[in-house]
Amino acid sequence: MAKFVAENPAKLKADVALVSDTELFAEGLPTLCIGLRGLIYTEIEARGPARDLHSGMYGGAAPNAVFGLIELLSKLKDANGKIQIPGMYDDVEPPTPAEKRSWEHLPFDEKDFLKSEVGSTQLTGEPGYSVMERTWARPTLEVHGIAGGFTGAGAKTVIPARATAKVSMRMVPKQNPEKIIAAYKKFVADNTPAGIQTEVRVLSWGPAIMVNPDHPAIHVAASAFRDILGKETVFIRSGGSIPIVGDFAKHLGIPTILMGFGLPDDGLHSPNEKYKVANYYAGIMTIAHFFEQYGQ
Amino acid sequence: MAKFVAENPAKLKADVALVSDTELFAEGLPTLCIGLRGLIYTEIEARGPARDLHSGMYGGAAPNAVFGLIELLSKLKDANGKIQIPGMYDDVEPPTPAEKRSWEHLPFDEKDFLKSEVGSTQLTGEPGYSVMERTWARPTLEVHGIAGGFTGAGAKTVIPARATAKVSMRMVPKQNPEKIIAAYKKFVADNTPAGIQTEVRVLSWGPAIMVNPDHPAIHVAASAFRDILGKETVFIRSGGSIPIVGDFAKHLGIPTILMGFGLPDDGLHSPNEKYKVANYYAGIMTIAHFFEQYGQ
Repeated sequence: MAKFVAENPAKLKADVALVSDTELFAEGLPTLCIGLRGLIYTEIEARGPARDLHSGMYGGAAPNAVFGLIELLSKLKDANGKIQIPGMYDDVEPPTPAEKRSWEHLPFDEKDFLKSEVGSTQLTGEPGYSVMERTWARPTLEVHGIAGGFTGAGAKTVIPARATAKVSMRMVPKQNPEKIIAAYKKFVADNTPAGIQTEVRVLSWGPAIMVNPDHPAIHVAASAFRDILGKETVFIRSGGSIPIVGDFAKHLGIPTILMGFGLPDDGLHSPNEKYKVANYYAGIMTIAHFFEQYGQ
Repeated sequence: MAKFVAENPAKLKADVALVSDTELFAEGLPTLCIGLRGLIYTEIEARGPARDLHSGMYGGAAPNAVFGLIELLSKLKDANGKIQIPGMYDDVEPPTPAEKRSWEHLPFDEKDFLKSEVGSTQLTGEPGYSVMERTWARPTLEVHGIAGGFTGAGAKTVIPARATAKVSMRMVPKQNPEKIIAAYKKFVADNTPAGIQTEVRVLSWGPAIMVNPDHPAIHVAASAFRDILGKETVFIRSGGSIPIVGDFAKHLGIPTILMGFGLPDDGLHSPNEKYKVANYYAGIMTIAHFFEQYGQ
């Protein structure tokens, strides 16, 4: 799709794009998203001994690929989630005071967020930043999965030869993905333990995106939303990434209205994901009404 | 088998046991093993959010079970493999100066060991100890496998809810497994990151074992071995664990001759494990000769 957009700007000529891949900040609250974080998605592979070794006979002398990868990954973030890659925060642009203030007025209950959405014993993240700032306006790094060695039922005493992990970073406005990728690769090389060899594969990347809230199409979208749901529209950001929005901006020169109808407890990308039928109909009404209004 | 030994000491009455689960120190070199490390084998499970979460929407606020487990595991050992659990080295009995000296006379080439057995870029382990000391007479800790989150081909941006690792410790003479298990569980609890819950499951454990080299049966075994292979028998230890040897000592009150015929490059517990046919015949000859001699 990105390739098609780049190659067919004339065919795709438009005033504005509309993408429904975001959510209402709360049930019944008209919400336009005006900022998305960027994403760099990678895979790290670690290799130690030539083959899996017996941990009795070699434990104490042979490097362990799983433990080597663990040592390396543990250095990427501190206990508060602050990324340790040099230069990671150099270009981070904080939200304006006005935008930050508007987030403080959103209907948000941290205890309820912890209980009904996250479901762990406590929230984590950089001290001194609100949940909104941490998820919308700060870079983060996650290990999405890790695999290596023996993981079946019971016991097997191997020193694993190989291990892999999926690691991604979310970026905020003004951060340059290519600069971050270079710093990340250098950090992995510099922190690879003795006896271990690592390889980084970058699977995809795209920068953070901001939509100008003063664009006429955004104004019309906000009032169409208000007309249907009967409440004033709020402007938020999302911590997620929708790379095609960057392609529309770059190749077609148009902004994108991020008008989605999901709910915070839909369980996006999780088992038992849901979507509320009433929001499906509200979406049809709101988008049709927007087309009508914007056409006028 | 352990249960059967414990319940049938009269049926199993014997002067000595002979176990062939060890190896020649080098091709053609008669070798008796007189020490085995103990083993504690465990599984650690870490839980974070109630379900896998979208890393864009929750990254920066929600704890990650895979990263939490990585943080915890990375603290178990330092970069040289020294175990960080308080009290781990309190009861460690070093080898006697005479035993240590005998190890220095064994035919061992560290470069060849690295190249033909381990196959990594370099050896690892505690500085100031030889490879023999590190693998036979020092406690070690290994992560045998780890699994959690998304590990398929390509990219999926989840914050994993759950992760598990297999972790074992090898113990040397005088270390008390029950004391070590308690210290290990306390260390895991104390170092579990915020927002994460961990559970330790101990799958099996057994202490280190030493065989008295002055026992008459060991003397006969050493000379039978020398008679067949035509070289003086050497006495070594193994870093591995053979729990039944402890059961024989405890319930039957007998020592065990550890007379095995494997070779260091057999690739024990690894893919493409081999066993040399000539050593199979040498084993038959040596053991038959031992029975004959010991019977007299």
